[in-house]
Amino acid sequence: MPDIGIIMGSDSDLNIMKEAGEILEEFGVSYEYTICSAHRLPEETAEYAKNASSKGMKVIIAGAGGAAHLPGVIAAYTVVPVVGVPIKSSTLSGIDSLYSIVQMPKGIPVATVAINGSANAALLAVQVLAVSDDDLKTALFNYRQRMADGVLQKDKKLTEIGVQAYLEDKK
Amino acid sequence: MPDIGIIMGSDSDLNIMKEAGEILEEFGVSYEYTICSAHRLPEETAEYAKNASSKGMKVIIAGAGGAAHLPGVIAAYTVVPVVGVPIKSSTLSGIDSLYSIVQMPKGIPVATVAINGSANAALLAVQVLAVSDDDLKTALFNYRQRMADGVLQKDKKLTEIGVQAYLEDKK
Amino acid sequence: MPDIGIIMGSDSDLNIMKEAGEILEEFGVSYEYTICSAHRLPEETAEYAKNASSKGMKVIIAGAGGAAHLPGVIAAYTVVPVVGVPIKSSTLSGIDSLYSIVQMPKGIPVATVAINGSANAALLAVQVLAVSDDDLKTALFNYRQRMADGVLQKDKKLTEIGVQAYLEDKK
Amino acid sequence: MPDIGIIMGSDSDLNIMKEAGEILEEFGVSYEYTICSAHRLPEETAEYAKNASSKGMKVIIAGAGGAAHLPGVIAAYTVVPVVGVPIKSSTLSGIDSLYSIVQMPKGIPVATVAINGSANAALLAVQVLAVSDDDLKTALFNYRQRMADGVLQKDKKLTEIGVQAYLEDKK
Amino acid sequence: MPDIGIIMGSDSDLNIMKEAGEILEEFGVSYEYTICSAHRLPEETAEYAKNASSKGMKVIIAGAGGAAHLPGVIAAYTVVPVVGVPIKSSTLSGIDSLYSIVQMPKGIPVATVAINGSANAALLAVQVLAVSDDDLKTALFNYRQRMADGVLQKDKKLTEIGVQAYLEDKK
Amino acid sequence: MPDIGIIMGSDSDLNIMKEAGEILEEFGVSYEYTICSAHRLPEETAEYAKNASSKGMKVIIAGAGGAAHLPGVIAAYTVVPVVGVPIKSSTLSGIDSLYSIVQMPKGIPVATVAINGSANAALLAVQVLAVSDDDLKTALFNYRQRMADGVLQKDKKLTEIGVQAYLEDKK
Amino acid sequence: MPDIGIIMGSDSDLNIMKEAGEILEEFGVSYEYTICSAHRLPEETAEYAKNASSKGMKVIIAGAGGAAHLPGVIAAYTVVPVVGVPIKSSTLSGIDSLYSIVQMPKGIPVATVAINGSANAALLAVQVLAVSDDDLKTALFNYRQRMADGVLQKDKKLTEIGVQAYLEDKK
Amino acid sequence: MPDIGIIMGSDSDLNIMKEAGEILEEFGVSYEYTICSAHRLPEETAEYAKNASSKGMKVIIAGAGGAAHLPGVIAAYTVVPVVGVPIKSSTLSGIDSLYSIVQMPKGIPVATVAINGSANAALLAVQVLAVSDDDLKTALFNYRQRMADGVLQKDKKLTEIGVQAYLEDKK
Repeated sequence: MPDIGIIMGSDSDLNIMKEAGEILEEFGVSYEYTICSAHRLPEETAEYAKNASSKGMKVIIAGAGGAAHLPGVIAAYTVVPVVGVPIKSSTLSGIDSLYSIVQMPKGIPVATVAINGSANAALLAVQVLAVSDDDLKTALFNYRQRMADGVLQKDKKLTEIGVQAYLEDKK
Repeated sequence: MPDIGIIMGSDSDLNIMKEAGEILEEFGVSYEYTICSAHRLPEETAEYAKNASSKGMKVIIAGAGGAAHLPGVIAAYTVVPVVGVPIKSSTLSGIDSLYSIVQMPKGIPVATVAINGSANAALLAVQVLAVSDDDLKTALFNYRQRMADGVLQKDKKLTEIGVQAYLEDKK
Repeated sequence: MPDIGIIMGSDSDLNIMKEAGEILEEFGVSYEYTICSAHRLPEETAEYAKNASSKGMKVIIAGAGGAAHLPGVIAAYTVVPVVGVPIKSSTLSGIDSLYSIVQMPKGIPVATVAINGSANAALLAVQVLAVSDDDLKTALFNYRQRMADGVLQKDKKLTEIGVQAYLEDKK
Repeated sequence: MPDIGIIMGSDSDLNIMKEAGEILEEFGVSYEYTICSAHRLPEETAEYAKNASSKGMKVIIAGAGGAAHLPGVIAAYTVVPVVGVPIKSSTLSGIDSLYSIVQMPKGIPVATVAINGSANAALLAVQVLAVSDDDLKTALFNYRQRMADGVLQKDKKLTEIGVQAYLEDKK
Repeated sequence: MPDIGIIMGSDSDLNIMKEAGEILEEFGVSYEYTICSAHRLPEETAEYAKNASSKGMKVIIAGAGGAAHLPGVIAAYTVVPVVGVPIKSSTLSGIDSLYSIVQMPKGIPVATVAINGSANAALLAVQVLAVSDDDLKTALFNYRQRMADGVLQKDKKLTEIGVQAYLEDKK
Repeated sequence: MPDIGIIMGSDSDLNIMKEAGEILEEFGVSYEYTICSAHRLPEETAEYAKNASSKGMKVIIAGAGGAAHLPGVIAAYTVVPVVGVPIKSSTLSGIDSLYSIVQMPKGIPVATVAINGSANAALLAVQVLAVSDDDLKTALFNYRQRMADGVLQKDKKLTEIGVQAYLEDKK
Repeated sequence: MPDIGIIMGSDSDLNIMKEAGEILEEFGVSYEYTICSAHRLPEETAEYAKNASSKGMKVIIAGAGGAAHLPGVIAAYTVVPVVGVPIKSSTLSGIDSLYSIVQMPKGIPVATVAINGSANAALLAVQVLAVSDDDLKTALFNYRQRMADGVLQKDKKLTEIGVQAYLEDKK
Repeated sequence: MPDIGIIMGSDSDLNIMKEAGEILEEFGVSYEYTICSAHRLPEETAEYAKNASSKGMKVIIAGAGGAAHLPGVIAAYTVVPVVGVPIKSSTLSGIDSLYSIVQMPKGIPVATVAINGSANAALLAVQVLAVSDDDLKTALFNYRQRMADGVLQKDKKLTEIGVQAYLEDKK
């Protein structure tokens, strides 16, 4: 049984949502991917959400674009925390997705991350699991340390070789 | 059996949505009001939408604010035309409501009207009924004529008494 | 006599508006295309709208971009339901088109769909016809079933071959 | 025959549009007010525009809010310069009005001024008349001089009595 | 030791943030309030965040307005999940707050809720605790049931007494 | 002496502003191009504006992007009508340019056209000249007729060859 | 000779701009207030800016709203640092002011602060003076300490008396 | 010891931020580049800011995108003037960056320049240094003169060779 369900409204969102799985992989957290549409498969979406808790899911990550109802519809059917990922849309750059996900009414929250922020959605899910799992907490600290080291190395390199060479190198 | 269902996500929308009923009243079209929340009563919302056609509903008018999922969720469960009314929200003036309603994905349309435009939602519903009802078509022409006469009278009054007096009179 | 009139302000909108005809084709609903500009051909636009009802048109689909007046101008001359399609504009991404179409004043509604949502405009038109046509209603249910099956197949494929292979396959 | 036609879509715009008349009054330029709706009185609107030139109108000032089509519809029927005044709307603060008026397609311009900027619309109209009227040009220079003097006097007063006293005085 | 820390940048946010405490009270979850500013007390803010985990805090709810850095700054110093509440600002209605909180870079997520959505922030915090606490899960279901019953009662009342009487009653 | 001055803040605007000259050419109206920056050449800009009237300029067309002060600065120094063209900017798509040009304070109007709408700026300038020039008025009617014929021909072609062939042909 | 010039486009901005003077007062930095309009008094504005340096001004604080050209126009005439304060406008909440001030072209910067942020404009001016004045640097540290103490006291009070009593007390 | 510190949140900002160094080079002002993230290296960021003054830094230029906290976080730890450069973001074009940087609360200002305006950030820094350095003031005047000459030459060339040839030449 996977700890985390990753669900998206359309396979066109997969390119963005794949980062969530990569992060979870890095932490050794189990997950499964589902394509399901709140509008084209409303009953399957409801079933997915209603069964999430009994199937052992601890966090659901839901990505959607445009009138992005998927995260909110799932949140309406379960008390498992839902993390919403607004997908950048072709016409409104994801502002529509963001507003449709974050502006939920009182009673049914969706934990919203940045537009196209599926990696952060996964990290947030890991942080939620880590509330009662000290090994994951340690793994998160290590992940942060690696990130920090990465920035420090870039800064060191920039200091050493200068702006021009650094930009050449990045190409 | 009412021809038109008017549904809203919260009784705080009623002040706006009452105009829809007033318009339908004027055309002698039957309707019923329902308060139902896509997030707090997801299953009742689904039931409402699934039964709409068999109950004889011909158009559904759905008003919602914020992450306004109600019109889209209903549209997902029925092929009865759904007219969406974005309700002006306290923080984002209804832009969030508008985007959440109008930006529906391919396959499930919602006929969106102006922010707080519940009167126009009702007129649109009457126009839909009038597609196969010549009496309603005539009634719509008469309604338009009355609107036109109203503007003409205002223009005439303005010409007669002038700007200053007109504005005094309006107070 | 076509049931549906599809009209657009410029032939640069045709690339988007062609989807509307494709959908209507799929449902066996008759339609005709017209290029007409509310600003460059105002009288022809007015004629088009005034004759729509007597020519037997049951729904008009009007696409326009920028200061997108076409749907509203047509709606002013007829009680045939008008579905407005905001075309994505080069400078403001279609926000201007959306506001110009959806924010109609009380009395003259335009049923607005998503930016570039001409397919949904056609589906909405079919739904309006289906209000008094049970065969179309059945056809709409079948269309929805095919959409649902399409998503289910994608989900099945994703489960079977995994994210990496799925994305490779889509290229 | 008035030189300037001031037209608005609704008498709710009169409170803003009255400033236009006051400015024209100040310059001794003749004008007439009309209430006419592009949507509720489309044919009267067309007539108004088509007759403007032969009636001797030299500039038309048109104010409208929301899906503000009036200025553009008038511009479509006449080559008399049309100055558009976007009226601040109750839901979108006039952004909808502004976009609907300013984003006109190639071929049919509307000279757009600020939201609620009816005084500037009138000044612009006077500037247009002044292109071939040296007396008006002089009057405009004098108007500017009076404005400049007004600001200088305020600055002098502020220097003399200080911020605190100045603000007390304004109450 | 409180399970939940509620922190805000200014006591002007307290009016909104008090709802978070009321929700937690209802669920019997311990919490403490802190006023601390990421800009005026940066070191105290860092201390607060660094000690959160060892003090036993399981979720931090952080509210801020304008250039709302508080949630992100706290998230940078701890792996305890941070829920961000964008406070409606006086000039930009909270869009600035929303963007400043939700658009976090890869690596450091903030779980963002609606503008002024502090009640939902608290519910989300409870949902996070409930991941490993079945009693809280049951309490959440009961809370949802009470919400659902509340809407059903309103709907029943509306059906019984009608729109006019309902609106009179609400005044 | 040219009737129309076309001025822009940077030679990067020339690609857009060249359309203005092409339109004026078509009407046989004299014009001259100037590159001048309100910020980099403030005194030359002021001189340009102060001399416009005595040099015989009847309308000034000013294009600028970003914090687009050029049209407003010129308008401050002359009573010759100034038509402002907001240039699409690289970061904010021209919204910044539009607001900076259209939202002028009471007393100093700028006649604003669409973002990148330099062709319409020129047409508006011609319409202003035509107020006292019947030949230009006739030329404008002829221009409109040619535009109308162009749309009619496109519509006829679309009717004859159909959507598919039409789109092939446009490539 | 004052070190800081505070200038605004209209006396309606004085209510906001007075905070700047109050801050400077607190630091014992000399200043003078001027009302001057980039549009109504363009030459006086240019003179003000050109003389700033020779009069000994070290920083200019300029507030303006709408098409807020004042800070940019002044910056064009002087190399004295200009701090721009976007004033909240009645129609667009100050977004127009912000864009008109902050989006300056390469070559002529304006140091922009928050909408209505005149207090911060003054603090920024003091920070600029403090670059070469250690006493002011110390005064700034003390000011920060007082701010910090203020927040700490509020936090302490909230902890002592609780949310309810705190909010009562604030009324 | 460098006079100016240039800091950015990620090496993806370097392409934009390199212009700042080029400007400072041109003025012979010393500077150093640092990559440091307010979120991934919060303590190093705090250290950087706290040491800035004692290390002799006179101005800090900080660039960041998205929830762009870096300039504000640095400003919280130092009274050295901080110039913020909002970096254009991939989803919201830099509006998020702009709001996160400019909308700072009372007490802690950030001098914000245009989106991607790192060259202007450097010029502003030079202007700040020039407050107490007459040589730099002269250098700034010379820089302005060169900019002015550049525009004048472009204008001259345009006048000489005309629009068509000028545009050909630019390709």
